[in-house]
Amino acid sequence: MITVLKRNATEEQRNNLIKWLEEQGVSVHVSVGESVTILGLVGDTSNIDMDMLRLLDIVDDVKRISESYKKSNRKFHPKDTVIEVPTKAGEAARVGGGNFAVIAGPCSVESEEQIVEVAKRVKAAGATMLRGGAFKPRTSPYAFQGMRAEGLELLSIAKRETGLPIVSEIMNENHLELFEDVDVIQVGARNMQNFELLKALGQTNKPILLKRGLANTLEELLMSAEYIMAGGNENVILCERGIRTFDHFTRNTLDLSAIPALHEMTHLPVIVDPSHSTGRADYVPTMSLAAAACGADGLMIEVHNNPSCALCDGAQSLTPDQFDEVMKKVMKVKEAVK
Amino acid sequence: MITVLKRNATEEQRNNLIKWLEEQGVSVHVSVGESVTILGLVGDTSNIDMDMLRLLDIVDDVKRISESYKKSNRKFHPKDTVIEVPTKAGEAARVGGGNFAVIAGPCSVESEEQIVEVAKRVKAAGATMLRGGAFKPRTSPYAFQGMRAEGLELLSIAKRETGLPIVSEIMNENHLELFEDVDVIQVGARNMQNFELLKALGQTNKPILLKRGLANTLEELLMSAEYIMAGGNENVILCERGIRTFDHFTRNTLDLSAIPALHEMTHLPVIVDPSHSTGRADYVPTMSLAAAACGADGLMIEVHNNPSCALCDGAQSLTPDQFDEVMKKVMKVKEAVK
Amino acid sequence: MITVLKRNATEEQRNNLIKWLEEQGVSVHVSVGESVTILGLVGDTSNIDMDMLRLLDIVDDVKRISESYKKSNRKFHPKDTVIEVPTKAGEAARVGGGNFAVIAGPCSVESEEQIVEVAKRVKAAGATMLRGGAFKPRTSPYAFQGMRAEGLELLSIAKRETGLPIVSEIMNENHLELFEDVDVIQVGARNMQNFELLKALGQTNKPILLKRGLANTLEELLMSAEYIMAGGNENVILCERGIRTFDHFTRNTLDLSAIPALHEMTHLPVIVDPSHSTGRADYVPTMSLAAAACGADGLMIEVHNNPSCALCDGAQSLTPDQFDEVMKKVMKVKEAVK
Amino acid sequence: MITVLKRNATEEQRNNLIKWLEEQGVSVHVSVGESVTILGLVGDTSNIDMDMLRLLDIVDDVKRISESYKKSNRKFHPKDTVIEVPTKAGEAARVGGGNFAVIAGPCSVESEEQIVEVAKRVKAAGATMLRGGAFKPRTSPYAFQGMRAEGLELLSIAKRETGLPIVSEIMNENHLELFEDVDVIQVGARNMQNFELLKALGQTNKPILLKRGLANTLEELLMSAEYIMAGGNENVILCERGIRTFDHFTRNTLDLSAIPALHEMTHLPVIVDPSHSTGRADYVPTMSLAAAACGADGLMIEVHNNPSCALCDGAQSLTPDQFDEVMKKVMKVKEAVK
Repeated sequence: MITVLKRNATEEQRNNLIKWLEEQGVSVHVSVGESVTILGLVGDTSNIDMDMLRLLDIVDDVKRISESYKKSNRKFHPKDTVIEVPTKAGEAARVGGGNFAVIAGPCSVESEEQIVEVAKRVKAAGATMLRGGAFKPRTSPYAFQGMRAEGLELLSIAKRETGLPIVSEIMNENHLELFEDVDVIQVGARNMQNFELLKALGQTNKPILLKRGLANTLEELLMSAEYIMAGGNENVILCERGIRTFDHFTRNTLDLSAIPALHEMTHLPVIVDPSHSTGRADYVPTMSLAAAACGADGLMIEVHNNPSCALCDGAQSLTPDQFDEVMKKVMKVKEAVK
Repeated sequence: MITVLKRNATEEQRNNLIKWLEEQGVSVHVSVGESVTILGLVGDTSNIDMDMLRLLDIVDDVKRISESYKKSNRKFHPKDTVIEVPTKAGEAARVGGGNFAVIAGPCSVESEEQIVEVAKRVKAAGATMLRGGAFKPRTSPYAFQGMRAEGLELLSIAKRETGLPIVSEIMNENHLELFEDVDVIQVGARNMQNFELLKALGQTNKPILLKRGLANTLEELLMSAEYIMAGGNENVILCERGIRTFDHFTRNTLDLSAIPALHEMTHLPVIVDPSHSTGRADYVPTMSLAAAACGADGLMIEVHNNPSCALCDGAQSLTPDQFDEVMKKVMKVKEAVK
Repeated sequence: MITVLKRNATEEQRNNLIKWLEEQGVSVHVSVGESVTILGLVGDTSNIDMDMLRLLDIVDDVKRISESYKKSNRKFHPKDTVIEVPTKAGEAARVGGGNFAVIAGPCSVESEEQIVEVAKRVKAAGATMLRGGAFKPRTSPYAFQGMRAEGLELLSIAKRETGLPIVSEIMNENHLELFEDVDVIQVGARNMQNFELLKALGQTNKPILLKRGLANTLEELLMSAEYIMAGGNENVILCERGIRTFDHFTRNTLDLSAIPALHEMTHLPVIVDPSHSTGRADYVPTMSLAAAACGADGLMIEVHNNPSCALCDGAQSLTPDQFDEVMKKVMKVKEAVK
Repeated sequence: MITVLKRNATEEQRNNLIKWLEEQGVSVHVSVGESVTILGLVGDTSNIDMDMLRLLDIVDDVKRISESYKKSNRKFHPKDTVIEVPTKAGEAARVGGGNFAVIAGPCSVESEEQIVEVAKRVKAAGATMLRGGAFKPRTSPYAFQGMRAEGLELLSIAKRETGLPIVSEIMNENHLELFEDVDVIQVGARNMQNFELLKALGQTNKPILLKRGLANTLEELLMSAEYIMAGGNENVILCERGIRTFDHFTRNTLDLSAIPALHEMTHLPVIVDPSHSTGRADYVPTMSLAAAACGADGLMIEVHNNPSCALCDGAQSLTPDQFDEVMKKVMKVKEAVK
C-alpha cells in the first residue's frame, strides 16, 4: 500500500502517522521527494482502512498495490478453479477451467409436473444443471413469495427423475437445513453484501453461486466471495447478471467486459445470466452467444414450459424449443472461439 | 393499472389475456381505439406482475395508476406520521410532522469512555438520539466487524448516563434479542432488500430506521418499508444516504431531491445522513444545512471524540466542536425556512 | 400518444386541455373510466412536448404509442438499410443487411509512414475501411489536438495506396470542406447531441458514422440520427462505444444488449467499438468476438504500428499481429452464428 | 505525477520508459522499493497521457499529484473570482466572492409581451439577470427550435426596459455575432465538451455560463472551463444542473455536494439550476433553498408568465408569484448561513 503525503505535512504529523501504522503491524518505507513524500506500507495491510487513511489532513492519496482479496486472487492461485458438482450418475458436473456449465429451468417452481417436464427438456437440450426458485426475493411484500420448502421438495423429485444437479436461491441462513439436497446454493444479487448470510455459507461445503449486485464493482464481488472462502468453503461460482445504469431499455445493463476482467482478477469460474439481466426472452439468444464468445464458463437461462398459459410466451423465459435452438448455436460459438 | 395492447393483437389473444386477468381477481374495462386497445384493470392489482405483463407478445406497455405501496402511501394517510421514541426522562424524542431529529455519535462503539463522552457532548449540542455501530457491515471479511454484543452494552451505559435514546444497526434477525435495549433499530443500505430481515423487524414494535440502498429507487425504498409495515410495525423512519453514480468525488451522490419527493409520496418521516453519503467531514456541515433547508425531518451525523488519535481528524466524522457549530447553523436554517 | 388524467381533474380543465391539444393539430379521443380518464391523441404528435404535458396539474401520465423517431424507425422501413461506401477499385464497401464492416486503424494519424503501413496491414487482415483521427477531441486544451488538415491529407495518401475507404472524425461544421476526400464522416460521442453539427451533416451526401454518447439512451441516439436524416442524408451508421456507469474497471461499460435492441428499433446498421469502450487492448479480442456473436454489423478497432515506440504495447490499440488473430476468430464466430 | 511499476518490469524496460518520459520534458525521480518501483515525474506533466501510461505492460498505476486544470485551479489562485456583468444603470451585476446572482426568466422567448412582462416581474422580486432561450437544443429535429435571432432581439428589448443584463444559450460559433448584446453567453449541458465552441468562446471577452454535462465529472467540467480560459477569457461561471443516474423520479439528479467540492477545487463561481435538474416546478422552491444553504453563488430559475395558457401551471417553470415567495425564503436562508 502506498500513502502519498501532502506537501504541508509537518515532520511531527508524519512521525505520528508512521508510528500508528507500525502499531497496526505493517512496516513503513519513507521516500521523501521534492514536492511529495511517499510512505510504502509493507506486510499485511488488509486491516488498514484505506478510506480513513485517505481522509487524513496530511494525506493526499492512498493506493493499494496488492488487492484486498486474497483467496480468490489469481495472483496467488494462477490455475483456474474447477468446481465439481456430484451427480447421481456418479460423474461430476464441472464448471470452470474449460468446463462449460448450462444451468436452465423455470424462474419459480410451480408444480411437480412443471419442474419435471422442464428438467427433462433442458437435459435433452444439453443443460448440465437444473435451476428453480423456491424462495423468491420480491420487491413487494404482497407478491408471491415462492413455494418455499415445498418447492425444494419438487426440485428433489426432478433431480431424481433426470439426474441433473439442482440449483436454488437461499435468502436466510435459518433455512440452510432445508437445502440439504440442493447441489448448488445461489445467493441473489440483492444479498451479495448480506455478510451474515455469506459467513453462514462459508461454513458449508456446498458450491455457492454468487450473483453480482446491481451496483457492485468487481472488487466488491470478489470481497463477497472472500467472505465465503474465508470461512473455509472455496467452491464459489461467480455470476454476472447485469448492473443498474441510467438506461432502462433492458431491465439491467449486461456487463460482458466483466468476463475477461474477472478471468484476469480471479481463478474462480464466471457464468452469465442473460435472462435476468435483459429481462426479455427475445434478447436471451443473442446475449447467450455473446457470453459464450467472450469466454464465460457457463450460462444460467430461464426456461419455462406451460402450454396452458398463453401469458408466458413473451416473458423473460425461453420455451424449451427456443432453448434447444440457443444451445445448438452456443455450442457452435464455443467451438469457433476455442 | 392500464395495459396497452399492440395493434397486431388478435381477438382471441385479447380474450385469453382478459380471462387470465379476471382470474387474478381484477375486473377489466376494454377501450378499443383506432390504433390501439387499452385494458383498464380495476381492483387489487398488487398481485399482477407488471414486468411479466409488459413482456407479452401482444402488450405494448403497462402503467400503474395506483402505486404498489399501500400502508406507506400518503394518498391513504395524508397526515405526517410522527414516530415517538420514549426516553428515560419520560418525554418522547419525536421524528416527523415538524419534529426534527438529530441522531449523532461515532461510526463504531470503541470503549465505554468513548461512547459516554461523545454522548454527553452531542446531547449538550442538541442531539436528540445517540448512534453507535456495534455490528458493522464491512466489505472485507478481514476488517474489524464491530464490538458486537459488547458494543450494544456500552451503548446502554451511555443511554443510562445521558438519557438519550440509542440507535444501532442490525444485520441478522438472529441477533434481535440482543437489541432489546436499543430504541431505534437501523437497517443499513446493503440490507435494504434483505426481505427476510425486514419481515422479522415487522414482527417487533420498535421504530426502524431504514436506509435507502445504493442503487434503489424511491419506490423500492417504500416497498421495503412496506415489508416492515405489512408485518404490523408501522414505525418506519426513512433515510437518504447517497446513491451510486458515475461520479466518485464524494463516496456517494447525496440525492436531496428525494426529500420533497418522498414527502409527496409517503407520510413517513425522512432524514438525511450527510456523513456516509459524502464520506468527507469537510462537506458534512454544508450538506447538513442543505438537508435542513429542503425540509428533511432530521439528520444522522457521525461525531467522534478521540483526542489521543491524531488519525481521526480528517475522516468522515466531525469533532464535537465542529458538531456544535453545525447544530447552531442548522437551527438558524430551520428557523429561516419555517 | 396517450394522456392519463388525474381523478381530480374538473370538466373545465379537461376541456381546456383538449382544446389546446386540438390547436396543436391532433385529434383527441376521450375515454372516461371509473377512476381515470384517458385522452388518446391521434395524428402527428411529434410537436407535443411530453415533458410539459406530464407536469400539468391534471395529468397523471403521458405515454407515447408511436415512437418519436420516424425516418430511422424500422416500423416504417422494415428492410435493413445497406450503406454503400464506394471504393477506388469500383466495388462498394457495404455495411448492414448481412454485410460486415471492419474499420481499423490508429487512434491518431501521426505520419505518412505510420498511416500507410497500418493501412496495408489491416487491409491484408481483412479490414474493409481505414480509420484515423486528424481532429482529436481531448478533455484537456493542453493535450495534442491532432494533425488536423495535414492528418486528412495523409489519410488520402493511405487511401490511394491501398484502395481502402477512409473514416475520420469531424468536430466543427466549418471544417466540412476539408473532408471532401473522406468517405465516412464520424461524429464522436461527445458531439452526439451537437445538433448544429448534425444539421450541417444532414446537408451532405456522405455516410455518417454516429457514435452513441456516454450517457445517452438508444432513443436519443436515434433522434440524433433523425437530425441527419431529416436534412436529407439517410446514410447513417450507428456505433455502440460504451456508456458511463458507476463501475470504472473498463473506461466505459460496453452495452452489447444495444445491438439486438437497435436492430429491433431501426433499420440502420449498428457497429461496435471495443477499443474505446474498454480502453484496454487486452479486452478488445474477447469483446470483438462477443459483438460479432450478438449480431453487430461491424467493428471499429484501433490498430497501431510503431515498433520504435516501446510505450505503445499495452495501450488500447492492438498491434497488426494481434489484429490478424482477432480477425480470424471473428470470421469463425460470424460463420457459427449465421 | 507518480507512476508505479509492476514487480516484473525489467531494468531495460524501466530505462526505456524513463528515457521516453524525459523526452516529454519532465524529470524523473526513481524510488526502488522491495516489492515496487515508483517513478516521480516532476515538471509540466500536463502533456503526459495518463491513460496511455497506465496501460503499459510494466505500469501498475499512475496518479496525478497536481491537477490537470491550471487556470481554474484554486491552488494557484486562492481568492474567489468575482465575475462582473455591466448593467445599463452603470453598476455591475456580480457573481461570486459573496455576490449572489439570481438569473430568472422563461425557458424560451415567445413574444415581446411575454419576455418584457416576465423581466419586470423577476426584477421586482430581486433577480439580478434575465434568462431566455432563443436557440433551443431539442432532442427531436421536429420540435420547436426557438425563435433564434428574433428571440435575441426581444431579449434586448426586455434589457432596455428593465436594465437587467441578459443570459442566453449559444449552440454554434457561427452565431457569435448575433450575441453582441447578450451579456452572459450560456453553454448548455450537451455542449459542455463541444471543444470547438469552447475555443471560440475563449476568444471573446464575455462572461460564459458553463453548464455541467449530464455525465461529466467535476474535473471534466473544470477542463472545459480551462478550454475557455486558455483562450484568454477567464470570465467563467460554472453551473450544476443535475446528472444522469439510474433514478428517474426527477429528470436528473441534482448533485449539490458539487457546490462545496467545486469551491474547494476552483476559484470560479458556481451557481445551481434547480429547474432543469428536477424538471418539476414543485421541487424548485425546496431545492433553491438547499442550494442557497450549501453555499451556491447563485441560482438560475425558470419563470413563466402566461395566464392565458392553462397548460403552463404544472411545468418546470414557476409563476412570478411563486418566484416572489422563493426569493424571500432564499434571502432568509442566505442570512442564516452567513
